[in-house]
Amino acid sequence: MSDKIRVGIYGAAGYAGQDMVELMLRHPNIRLVFGTSSTDAGEFIPYTDLRYIPPEEAIIEDADLVVLALPHGASAQVAKQALDAGVRVIDLSADLRLDTPEAYKTWYGLDHPYPELLNAPYGLPEINRDNIRGTLAVGAPGCYPTTTLLGLYPLLATEALDPGAPVIVDAKSGVTGAGRSPKANTHFVEVYGNLTPYKTGRKHRHVGEIEQEMHKITTQCGPLIFTPHLLPVARGLMASIYVTLNPTMTSDRVHSLYTNHYADEPLVKVLPLGADATLRDAVLSNHCAISITPVTETHVLITSVTDNLRKGASSQGLQCFNLMYGFEETLALI
Amino acid sequence: MSDKIRVGIYGAAGYAGQDMVELMLRHPNIRLVFGTSSTDAGEFIPYTDLRYIPPEEAIIEDADLVVLALPHGASAQVAKQALDAGVRVIDLSADLRLDTPEAYKTWYGLDHPYPELLNAPYGLPEINRDNIRGTLAVGAPGCYPTTTLLGLYPLLATEALDPGAPVIVDAKSGVTGAGRSPKANTHFVEVYGNLTPYKTGRKHRHVGEIEQEMHKITTQCGPLIFTPHLLPVARGLMASIYVTLNPTMTSDRVHSLYTNHYADEPLVKVLPLGADATLRDAVLSNHCAISITPVTETHVLITSVTDNLRKGASSQGLQCFNLMYGFEETLALI
Amino acid sequence: MSDKIRVGIYGAAGYAGQDMVELMLRHPNIRLVFGTSSTDAGEFIPYTDLRYIPPEEAIIEDADLVVLALPHGASAQVAKQALDAGVRVIDLSADLRLDTPEAYKTWYGLDHPYPELLNAPYGLPEINRDNIRGTLAVGAPGCYPTTTLLGLYPLLATEALDPGAPVIVDAKSGVTGAGRSPKANTHFVEVYGNLTPYKTGRKHRHVGEIEQEMHKITTQCGPLIFTPHLLPVARGLMASIYVTLNPTMTSDRVHSLYTNHYADEPLVKVLPLGADATLRDAVLSNHCAISITPVTETHVLITSVTDNLRKGASSQGLQCFNLMYGFEETLALI
Amino acid sequence: MSDKIRVGIYGAAGYAGQDMVELMLRHPNIRLVFGTSSTDAGEFIPYTDLRYIPPEEAIIEDADLVVLALPHGASAQVAKQALDAGVRVIDLSADLRLDTPEAYKTWYGLDHPYPELLNAPYGLPEINRDNIRGTLAVGAPGCYPTTTLLGLYPLLATEALDPGAPVIVDAKSGVTGAGRSPKANTHFVEVYGNLTPYKTGRKHRHVGEIEQEMHKITTQCGPLIFTPHLLPVARGLMASIYVTLNPTMTSDRVHSLYTNHYADEPLVKVLPLGADATLRDAVLSNHCAISITPVTETHVLITSVTDNLRKGASSQGLQCFNLMYGFEETLALI
Repeated sequence: MSDKIRVGIYGAAGYAGQDMVELMLRHPNIRLVFGTSSTDAGEFIPYTDLRYIPPEEAIIEDADLVVLALPHGASAQVAKQALDAGVRVIDLSADLRLDTPEAYKTWYGLDHPYPELLNAPYGLPEINRDNIRGTLAVGAPGCYPTTTLLGLYPLLATEALDPGAPVIVDAKSGVTGAGRSPKANTHFVEVYGNLTPYKTGRKHRHVGEIEQEMHKITTQCGPLIFTPHLLPVARGLMASIYVTLNPTMTSDRVHSLYTNHYADEPLVKVLPLGADATLRDAVLSNHCAISITPVTETHVLITSVTDNLRKGASSQGLQCFNLMYGFEETLALI
Repeated sequence: MSDKIRVGIYGAAGYAGQDMVELMLRHPNIRLVFGTSSTDAGEFIPYTDLRYIPPEEAIIEDADLVVLALPHGASAQVAKQALDAGVRVIDLSADLRLDTPEAYKTWYGLDHPYPELLNAPYGLPEINRDNIRGTLAVGAPGCYPTTTLLGLYPLLATEALDPGAPVIVDAKSGVTGAGRSPKANTHFVEVYGNLTPYKTGRKHRHVGEIEQEMHKITTQCGPLIFTPHLLPVARGLMASIYVTLNPTMTSDRVHSLYTNHYADEPLVKVLPLGADATLRDAVLSNHCAISITPVTETHVLITSVTDNLRKGASSQGLQCFNLMYGFEETLALI
Repeated sequence: MSDKIRVGIYGAAGYAGQDMVELMLRHPNIRLVFGTSSTDAGEFIPYTDLRYIPPEEAIIEDADLVVLALPHGASAQVAKQALDAGVRVIDLSADLRLDTPEAYKTWYGLDHPYPELLNAPYGLPEINRDNIRGTLAVGAPGCYPTTTLLGLYPLLATEALDPGAPVIVDAKSGVTGAGRSPKANTHFVEVYGNLTPYKTGRKHRHVGEIEQEMHKITTQCGPLIFTPHLLPVARGLMASIYVTLNPTMTSDRVHSLYTNHYADEPLVKVLPLGADATLRDAVLSNHCAISITPVTETHVLITSVTDNLRKGASSQGLQCFNLMYGFEETLALI
Repeated sequence: MSDKIRVGIYGAAGYAGQDMVELMLRHPNIRLVFGTSSTDAGEFIPYTDLRYIPPEEAIIEDADLVVLALPHGASAQVAKQALDAGVRVIDLSADLRLDTPEAYKTWYGLDHPYPELLNAPYGLPEINRDNIRGTLAVGAPGCYPTTTLLGLYPLLATEALDPGAPVIVDAKSGVTGAGRSPKANTHFVEVYGNLTPYKTGRKHRHVGEIEQEMHKITTQCGPLIFTPHLLPVARGLMASIYVTLNPTMTSDRVHSLYTNHYADEPLVKVLPLGADATLRDAVLSNHCAISITPVTETHVLITSVTDNLRKGASSQGLQCFNLMYGFEETLALI
């Protein structure tokens, strides 16, 4: 046991935290040393003989690495404390994702307490693998950004989009994405039989994150039009992405662009031409599934789906973990 | 307009309150004068040009009758105030249902503030019609008691049950029955794909109410074994009732007992022998649907279903209203 | 009774047919004379004392008007027979919708047996009211076309769209839209917890119908990109419509354009600016609910929702009925 | 590879078959050699590079053991063929479960073609482990019998039930239990928002199987009253079991009876006293979860839940497999 990496999870009873516990228990090189929860302190962590402890009782130095499944704002505090103590960090919140305190202020309305944390690499391995390897801290992407960016990446990287046309993302997410604390909008009766757009018109915080990462790849693309919807299901996220190509590309070549680009990515599955990715192609899996539909010569629909708690949160965090410690990237994930 | 009965609804934005508003708007002799809501004050009451007001702003004398869709404890206060002001009361809470302050204390853990309110008749018209007619105040039954008592009544009234055997009620309710305020147990993710027994072992408060009413009809019956479950649907309540007959009755005669007994009850539908009542036989209707299944010579399954918000709450309240004012009992209900 | 209009419904046990029966029973000037069903013949039509009859036993002359809730192809046969017998027709299938036999052949793969039927007016009252008034036959629009066209109409009518940009419609429909006969894709287990795009890339038959009607209003618009999805709910249809404006319009003026345009339309509700239309804003209603979200100066999201069985089928048919016979257009509908 | 046991699965594309494929792929001593499907022949078996083959193309001798996830009647034919060829059999259908051809005729309406197959042991390891060990063929129990018998076993084995009172089982199952071929009763729209009792009154075929196994343990029990319901969820089965004790037992001792009895059973979890088993305590697990609720001194509610496709079918089959070949019983199951 002594050579296993000791991991502590903050927010271990939330939906992403629960998933992270389950995944980590299957990893041969991880030993879970604590899981915190304000609401469930004292109860057993499922599949373990540990009990949740209140976050203030966690001794951060007991861990070699901490996973932060906390609200934004709270995460930065623990991340700072961990790094000061020489403990590595995988942050599933937004506190390590954006590149500048200005962007953080814009999208989250807060002054970032420790702007140096924003130097952590963006934890999307398929796009940023080299920077994640061996790092001490990583900001794992949000579920919408992961699904959208993986769906767009080959077209962005080849600068194949018409910069005069918007990138339209009509996204639909299961309710686990809204977190475990009860609110009016997650009451069963409000969700059941319903479909609810929310934070429409570039108001969702993930817009900033997605555009930031898009623009690192290329500035040759139009504005992001992003509409999230709450779906009456527990898990799964679908991004229906509508793009306009520039003259360097035609819609009938996009599918082969994607199959080639992702040929060596075990956690991205490009479906055969003619198939449409459904939510269930990703639910309870650790991968992103993508289908390509040419619509006109210059317009393409890309349907990208993930499990919002897995490739959209916990399994992506674990993929980063493997890169941080030099393990096989997909260890415990396929 | 001047000859319409002016009705005010307390708790008008809760699930039962919303349903009551909708039903009352269809009633030709009712004018809605106010609806209170602590949470939604200021918003429009659907289908009306009234806005919800905070309960403390309601002028009770503006109404001829108030409907109380409030938590138990709160209802008694308003009921008392209304009756003192000469305003009639239909209480959808438990505060007017039980017969004695002792029973109220036992099941609700509170000293009843106005025990005289407990003299109000029990508002189940098919069983207690004569006492409801013309009354000033009525305590409308709970959803489980309504569905259970209508399912049992003909057998109780004919004293056909074996007093040495329990009456077993395995009940399943949609989530509107748990109320509109968000709690962990009504979070979409906790309910979806799940089925949850709760307050098993005679712990549910409706046990006291059901047994009280059973024993008014006959004491020749065994104890009630009552198990409620939370179903992953919004509306509807099914009580699967297992009874043992005494020698005066055989199972093959129960169906005709029920069809005869309920022949003139427009809001109770006894299904043909061989059919099984499903939840949907009652959802969005104002009636109770009942099927009878002889199992052995002495054992019968009675499946009784209602819409928990309608015959289990609002439409039953309106049925009482019609009786209280001498209208056709089913006016605006069929 | 003798002065009521006698209506027969073909396909009365399908989902749209069932809804049509319910609505027509509430109409003071309609008497239902028969309902056909191949699968349910002999069973009672709910809420009536009629039984479904096999379609071949229906005597079309018993009716003054027939509603056809039949598969395309089958409808045309009955429509022809009805009109030849002097019986009026409301067709809920596609057989009277398209304008030319060529278009019908393109989208339905069949030679239209009676091309003269295609002269029937398109039954979308808010756009084509004058042509529906007094007509003998009407082709009621599909659910996707209704929801999309109502969502687009004010912008089309004012020629405010950029003809160089596509009109993107990401649509989501409840499962009643897929019909009542059991198929693999409507099996509960396949739909539950899933979200499924289908007939993506301009392959859905409604593309032809929507573009036909768009082009009657204006040719100044780009191609339609239409993606339908199957939602895990029973009823409701949402069209998320992404448009690009031309210089005659700015996004901040679109909301007032819509509120003005639809000010006198009782069956179209434009939500206040800032609100997003949810599925439930239309489910079990007879109207279309629309919300407007300015995204950039030139891009707007229009969310248009209907109940696919009501304004997307039966209630729209009844609205046409009222126009055909000169009744108040919303009689029995509001 | 050569020392792995070669397994072929008939009916591998059905819901139980799919689950069996997934489980077996995780078993270190199993090599899947074929999977048959009439409907999906030619398509890939998920997670493998095999394609489904039509059952008539399977070469049974290619396998050391076959799993039969076929309809009753069809299973017996393949089981006979397999055993004649020296290939072992795990039958998930009913063809090897009942003890006599008379019982088979009674409950399935067919003359059993090979009555000798009925000598196969009943594949419920917690009750019949010794007879399963090393056997050539096993009839794995149905989902309702598994869940009911595990819920009753300690009380039956100690002869603690009142033989004059019925054993009442109110059972609720997810829709996967109804199979994958589309039928009216599994259409999404019919199931959604509904709860449907079916085959009430001792008409369900599992009644014969449950009583047969109960009576092998003890004849000191009353008749089985069994009511199955179709729940609007995909997976999971709950049996709410109401029993009456005889004077040798009191309700407050039942919980310790169960915890003792099942202390060494890794695939049966008895919940702490006071907790109620929910569907989710078993969904996607390989175990049965049981809660005990004393109701009166002589009446107890036992809530027993399984995943109908796992402990109710595939994982139980695999547990039998481990016993048949002498592997650790829970290999690949915990």
